[in-house]
Amino acid sequence: MENIEKKCFKIDNFHFEEANVSLPIQVGYETYGKLNSEKNNTIMLCHYFTGNSHAAGKYAPTDAAPGWWDAIIGPGKAIDTDKFFVICADSICNINFNNPKVYTTGPGTINPKTGKPYAMDFPIFTLNDVVKSHKMLLDNLGISSLKAVIGPSMGGLQSFIWGKYYPDVVQKVVSVFATPMMRPWTLMVPNQLAIDSITLDPDWNGGNYYGGKVPNTGLLLAFKVLLMATRTDEWAELNFGRRIVEDGPSPYKSLDGKFLVQHEVEKIVLGRMQFFDPNGFLYIAKANTLFDLRSGNESLKDALSAIKAPTLMVIDESDLLFTRGQAEEALKYLPKAEMHCYNSHNGHLSCIFETGYFGEKLKSFLG
Amino acid sequence: MENIEKKCFKIDNFHFEEANVSLPIQVGYETYGKLNSEKNNTIMLCHYFTGNSHAAGKYAPTDAAPGWWDAIIGPGKAIDTDKFFVICADSICNINFNNPKVYTTGPGTINPKTGKPYAMDFPIFTLNDVVKSHKMLLDNLGISSLKAVIGPSMGGLQSFIWGKYYPDVVQKVVSVFATPMMRPWTLMVPNQLAIDSITLDPDWNGGNYYGGKVPNTGLLLAFKVLLMATRTDEWAELNFGRRIVEDGPSPYKSLDGKFLVQHEVEKIVLGRMQFFDPNGFLYIAKANTLFDLRSGNESLKDALSAIKAPTLMVIDESDLLFTRGQAEEALKYLPKAEMHCYNSHNGHLSCIFETGYFGEKLKSFLG
Repeated sequence: MENIEKKCFKIDNFHFEEANVSLPIQVGYETYGKLNSEKNNTIMLCHYFTGNSHAAGKYAPTDAAPGWWDAIIGPGKAIDTDKFFVICADSICNINFNNPKVYTTGPGTINPKTGKPYAMDFPIFTLNDVVKSHKMLLDNLGISSLKAVIGPSMGGLQSFIWGKYYPDVVQKVVSVFATPMMRPWTLMVPNQLAIDSITLDPDWNGGNYYGGKVPNTGLLLAFKVLLMATRTDEWAELNFGRRIVEDGPSPYKSLDGKFLVQHEVEKIVLGRMQFFDPNGFLYIAKANTLFDLRSGNESLKDALSAIKAPTLMVIDESDLLFTRGQAEEALKYLPKAEMHCYNSHNGHLSCIFETGYFGEKLKSFLG
Repeated sequence: MENIEKKCFKIDNFHFEEANVSLPIQVGYETYGKLNSEKNNTIMLCHYFTGNSHAAGKYAPTDAAPGWWDAIIGPGKAIDTDKFFVICADSICNINFNNPKVYTTGPGTINPKTGKPYAMDFPIFTLNDVVKSHKMLLDNLGISSLKAVIGPSMGGLQSFIWGKYYPDVVQKVVSVFATPMMRPWTLMVPNQLAIDSITLDPDWNGGNYYGGKVPNTGLLLAFKVLLMATRTDEWAELNFGRRIVEDGPSPYKSLDGKFLVQHEVEKIVLGRMQFFDPNGFLYIAKANTLFDLRSGNESLKDALSAIKAPTLMVIDESDLLFTRGQAEEALKYLPKAEMHCYNSHNGHLSCIFETGYFGEKLKSFLG
C-alpha cells in the first residue's frame, strides 16, 4: 500500500445522547483502497479498546510496524483494498490521546468554555455516540451505503450497533470476539476493576492531574488487569511458565523479585501505554460497561431482530470476555447469522494477532 | 455437634525455610470428632485463601453461621466425625488477623525485638512453611499418621505438599479445585494484581500503617479482583445480569452510578473483610505465587511421583484458576490418582458453597 495519511473530521456541535450535552469534537480517520464512482464499495472498520484508526499500512516506509490489522487489510487480503474502500476512525475519547497521529476529543481536551482540560467534566459517552460520530463522517464523505461494517472486540460491539440502528446502510455485519451486550462479569473484569485501579492512584486527584503528575501507576495496574483478562492460562504457561527474572532479586526472597510473567506483562503494557491518557482509559472502560444493544426494556430478541444484514460472528472458545455461550444466545435471535468458532487457546487478544484463524472465512463472507 | 473450641499451639522458634529466619509463631486450631485411643483416625483439613481454622460447627448456638465446610463435616456427613478426628489449623499469616478467634502470626504481630508490628519485616513465607507448622502441631498432639489430608483451593495446594513431603504420615490425599503448581496466569490473577492493588493505596505507606489509616481501598480492590477471578460469566449473569442499583444515580448518567454486580460484589467483599489485615492479604497472595510442588529443577513427574498415597482431585470445568487442563497434566504423573470432574458453572468459589457436587464422592473415597 502507498503511504497512509491521517485525516481529521470536525463536528462543531456533537450531541452526546445519554449525557444530553453538545460539544465540538474531532474524529481522526484513515482510508485504505479507493472509493468507486458509485460510492458503494465502502467497509467501515471499528477499532478495539486500546486501538485507534491506524488499522493498516504505514505512514512512512521507515515505520517500525504497520497498523493493527495490516495482516488482513490490503490488496488481495481478506479485507481486499483492490475491491473495497476501507475507513477506520478514532473513537470519541480515544485512549491514545497523546499520540500525535490520533485526533479525538476527551477529558484531556481543552474545554473552550474554561480554557482548561475537561477532566471529569467530560460527558459520559456510549458506543452509540461513537457510532453516531462515525456515521456523520460517512455522511460528510457522501457515502450512504456500506458493503460491511467490521470490528474486533470493542469494534465488534460497534458492529452490532451499526447493524441495528442503520439497517438501510449496512449490507453485512462482522463482529469479531464480541457479543451484543456487556455481561456483568466482563463489565467488572476488566472494565470496572480498571476504573477502580486508576482512581485508587493518589495522583489521579479526582481526574485533575493535567499539568501535574500523571497517575501512571494506577494506569499500569488497569492495563495489566485488561491484558491478563484478554489472555489465558495456556498462553501464559507456554510463554512464561514459572520462570523468574534472572537479573534481579528472586521472588522467593524479596517482595520486589519478579516472575517472568510479571516482568513481560509489564513490559508489554508499558510499551503500549506511552500515549495513553488515564482518564481516557477510564471513560472508555465506562463506555464499555454501558454497552447493551437492548434499548430500555427491549428484549435481546427484539434488539437483534432489528439487524437485517447477514451477520458473521467470529468467536474464540478461549475468550474469557465474550464467550461461546453468550454468542450462541445471540445466534438464536439474529435473523441471518452464522458463527465461525475455534479455539486459539490464547484468549481474547488473539483477535488482533492471530487473524489466520478467521481471515479466509472473512474473505469469503465479504464476497 | 457440640460447641466448638478454638485452641492455640505456640512454637517458640519456627524456622521459615525460604526466608531462613526463625520467629516465635502461634497456630490456632479446632478439632471435630474424637481422637481414638490408637490415635489413627485423624484427618487434617487445610483452609482456603480467605478462610481460617473455623471449618465446622459453631462456637455457641447463637452464632449466625457455622464454619465454612460445615455442610460436609459432622456426624454422618462426607467427612464423618463419628469416624474421624478432624483438625483444621490457621495458616501462618492468616488473612483474618483481626478476628479474635484466629491465632496466627503475621506482619501485624508485634515483633518482640522492636516492640512494633513486623510490617514488611515479616519474612516471606511459603505454603511449605504452613504445612510444616501444622505438622509440628500434629507431632505435639502425638499423632503420627493421618487417614487423609483434605483441602479446597489454597488448602488443596497444601494437600499436595503433605502428600509429597510426608508420604509415611498421609494415607490419602484430597485436593479440591487445586493443582500442583501456581501457573503464571493464576499467579497474576488474582495474586499479583491483588498485591499491586494493596500497594497502590497511598495509605499502605510501605506497609507501615498500623496505628494509622488502614489501606482499605486497596484491600477492597484486591479482594474484588480475587472474588471476580473465582466466579464466572454465567454466575454473574444469573445473579445480577445488567440490573442497576435503583436507589442511586444511574451508571449511564454518573461515574458514581452502579450496576448491581458492582454493588453486590462490594457488599460481599466488605462483609467478609472486616477482620482482614491488608499486609496479611499481600503476604498470603505472595505465598500463593510461590507455590510449586517441584523443588529446584525437579520435574513435575518427579514431584508428583513422590506422592504415594491414593489421591482424589476434585476439579470444576468452570474454574478459571485451576483448570481441567492443568489437572489432567498432573494426573499423568500421580501414581494413584483419580479425578472427579464436573461443571458447576459458578467458578472456583463453588468449592466452598456447592459441596453437593463432590460430597458423596469424597465420602466414598475416605471409606
